[in-house]
Amino acid sequence: MPDSHSANTDSQLPPDSVGLITPETARFDTPLALACGKTLSAYDLVYETYGTLNAERTNAVLVCHALSGHHHAAGYHHPDDRKPGWWDAYIGPGKPVDTQRFFVISVNNLGGCHGSTGPLSHNPDTGRLWGPDFPVVTVSDWVHSQARLADRLGIERFAAVIGGSLGGMQVMQWSIDYPKRIANAAVIAATPKLSAQNIAFNEVARQAIRSDPDFADGWYAEHGSVPKRGLKLARMVGHITYLSADAMGSKFGRDLRSDDLHFGFGVEFQVESYLRYQGDTFSSSFDANTYLLMTKALDYFDPAAEYSGDLAQALAPAQCPFLVLSFSSDWRFPPSRSRELVDALIHAGKRVCSAIIDSPYGHDAFLLPEPRYQAIFSAFMQRAAQAAELAAPPTAQPEESQP
Amino acid sequence: MPDSHSANTDSQLPPDSVGLITPETARFDTPLALACGKTLSAYDLVYETYGTLNAERTNAVLVCHALSGHHHAAGYHHPDDRKPGWWDAYIGPGKPVDTQRFFVISVNNLGGCHGSTGPLSHNPDTGRLWGPDFPVVTVSDWVHSQARLADRLGIERFAAVIGGSLGGMQVMQWSIDYPKRIANAAVIAATPKLSAQNIAFNEVARQAIRSDPDFADGWYAEHGSVPKRGLKLARMVGHITYLSADAMGSKFGRDLRSDDLHFGFGVEFQVESYLRYQGDTFSSSFDANTYLLMTKALDYFDPAAEYSGDLAQALAPAQCPFLVLSFSSDWRFPPSRSRELVDALIHAGKRVCSAIIDSPYGHDAFLLPEPRYQAIFSAFMQRAAQAAELAAPPTAQPEESQP
Repeated sequence: MPDSHSANTDSQLPPDSVGLITPETARFDTPLALACGKTLSAYDLVYETYGTLNAERTNAVLVCHALSGHHHAAGYHHPDDRKPGWWDAYIGPGKPVDTQRFFVISVNNLGGCHGSTGPLSHNPDTGRLWGPDFPVVTVSDWVHSQARLADRLGIERFAAVIGGSLGGMQVMQWSIDYPKRIANAAVIAATPKLSAQNIAFNEVARQAIRSDPDFADGWYAEHGSVPKRGLKLARMVGHITYLSADAMGSKFGRDLRSDDLHFGFGVEFQVESYLRYQGDTFSSSFDANTYLLMTKALDYFDPAAEYSGDLAQALAPAQCPFLVLSFSSDWRFPPSRSRELVDALIHAGKRVCSAIIDSPYGHDAFLLPEPRYQAIFSAFMQRAAQAAELAAPPTAQPEESQP
Repeated sequence: MPDSHSANTDSQLPPDSVGLITPETARFDTPLALACGKTLSAYDLVYETYGTLNAERTNAVLVCHALSGHHHAAGYHHPDDRKPGWWDAYIGPGKPVDTQRFFVISVNNLGGCHGSTGPLSHNPDTGRLWGPDFPVVTVSDWVHSQARLADRLGIERFAAVIGGSLGGMQVMQWSIDYPKRIANAAVIAATPKLSAQNIAFNEVARQAIRSDPDFADGWYAEHGSVPKRGLKLARMVGHITYLSADAMGSKFGRDLRSDDLHFGFGVEFQVESYLRYQGDTFSSSFDANTYLLMTKALDYFDPAAEYSGDLAQALAPAQCPFLVLSFSSDWRFPPSRSRELVDALIHAGKRVCSAIIDSPYGHDAFLLPEPRYQAIFSAFMQRAAQAAELAAPPTAQPEESQP
């Protein structure tokens, strides 16, 4: 059983932070059959938890991460961390995912590069690193591995499964594959399947990585190289799709980096400097094979495919209420894509609450604090908390003595 | 003086084609001072002409090309060419740019890779190829070099200067720099300046090329290499921005290339195959240094910059009527960007006719036949032709004998 990490006892950290967090690792030795036909004989999942699991184990919330995400969703690993976890704006005491009421689990997905078994792990069959031999994993595979983690932690049913972008796809898959184990589903800035344009951008990113000579057919780690040029390009093109054109315009406009034009190929405009920096930072911290796997999981996600494209039919098994949120300026997964999900849920007779949040920040808006987003997400999670607490009657209190 | 190439005498070619065309080269030995501060001591411009220049030289139309364009705008170079020039849908006998009335000149810009002086030419100062030493050229530089070509051909004033995308920017610059030499201006699918997002996509393309080890700091030709990986990526990302998301969706959707999923990194979806093909083709036919120069010319174009952003003031010198067209699904230079130009023209008291053409094909729509686009463009060009013909009174005909 994990320890609780809800107490923020470090006075240097914000009072609404979950505080200092230590990731944990769960080892699984039961083989996991993957959608691609291969089997992982054993694997590790790294995860973090925030808040306290109640005695009846009814208040657990699963957080699913996006393309370049990981298990570190809230709090800090070290007191001097410059930034908290990626969804810290929404997870913590008094926040929408209130760690005073919920026990939150955030897991690094299989194929990841932050501690869970992935391309940087050793392949027991060969003794080498997995590298490019790591099997292509799907959203479904992740959900099955997450269900095993829930088993390990003694959680029969999640009070909610929540996530944004690729994380939202995992939430959809949970509602289909484990309808009895998910009491509420929050699908944020996601889509029931990628568009051709989405796939096209992913393909550019993959080609950038795979055509980098330092990629060495995926065996770069053994070659002592890193395909930094390819990863940098992949991140640069990805980053453009995460921001709205307007947000880029108001952040950078056509501002020059210095006063004069240089008529050369150094940085001329601020937006170039920003993109190069984003690309450089990412290429020093993320694994190229993992990036390839994550984009493939995005491309393949399409639960309606086996129902001739009928998403309502694919969602028929789902039993929980849904919250579906999208953002007005998100052009990666725009509101129209969330609406496909909402329409299918309604058509399938499911309970669904949806909203389009006005935001200028594009796809990245799902990570940023925004009052209406916070209010709607909070309201949904409060109902989930109430239901979880009803399912777990309060410990009997000593009766008050009569006056 | 150029020959006329308007007669389509090859019966295998479509009857509304300008027919077989032979490009011509004009050599200029008067130094050209460039915006970057450098000077080209001498240079060639390759161009094509369609139709016949009238005796009074009032019916010439200048066509300006876009990022990856060239002088071959209409007709065929060989009877077995698979495709005609890039704007053949709009240039030819009976077409909007009617070669029965106009003498059309289409020029390859300086810095290009189709015969005009550029990175693949010899630098007279060093004896080497220009390569990365070729100076950064601007839209203004191009317009000045085009004006010299007009001088050479004895054309004092163009009946119209026309172009799409980067070509439209040259049209704007013509109206500002040579107001007495342009009788009509057609600015199609363009913008008075790039947005931060536009610059960001260009920067990704440049980084893709420049980080390709085969780029060799731009000296690839001397090294006997070609930065094909970088050019391919640049074209792939560019191509995504030329098509609308809807057009990509209806053209490819999520169609698989074969019946089954392969769970690997080969081509899985049709859109991946298409993009790779586009990238491969382009990387075999276009020069990397030229691509870098063209994207820089786009980035730098901003005629309002020297007027504190006041575009109306920048356009004050213009005297001609303008046609400004944009396309509903163009997200590279959307209708809102054309509207900035229209608003500034109106504010500056200029004559402007504008329309948003409904089209699903994104930025590429400016190249494709579309009835309303053809009708509006035709009407504008017919007025230009009438004015040109009024300026050139018809040759006196023998009087009819009285009955």
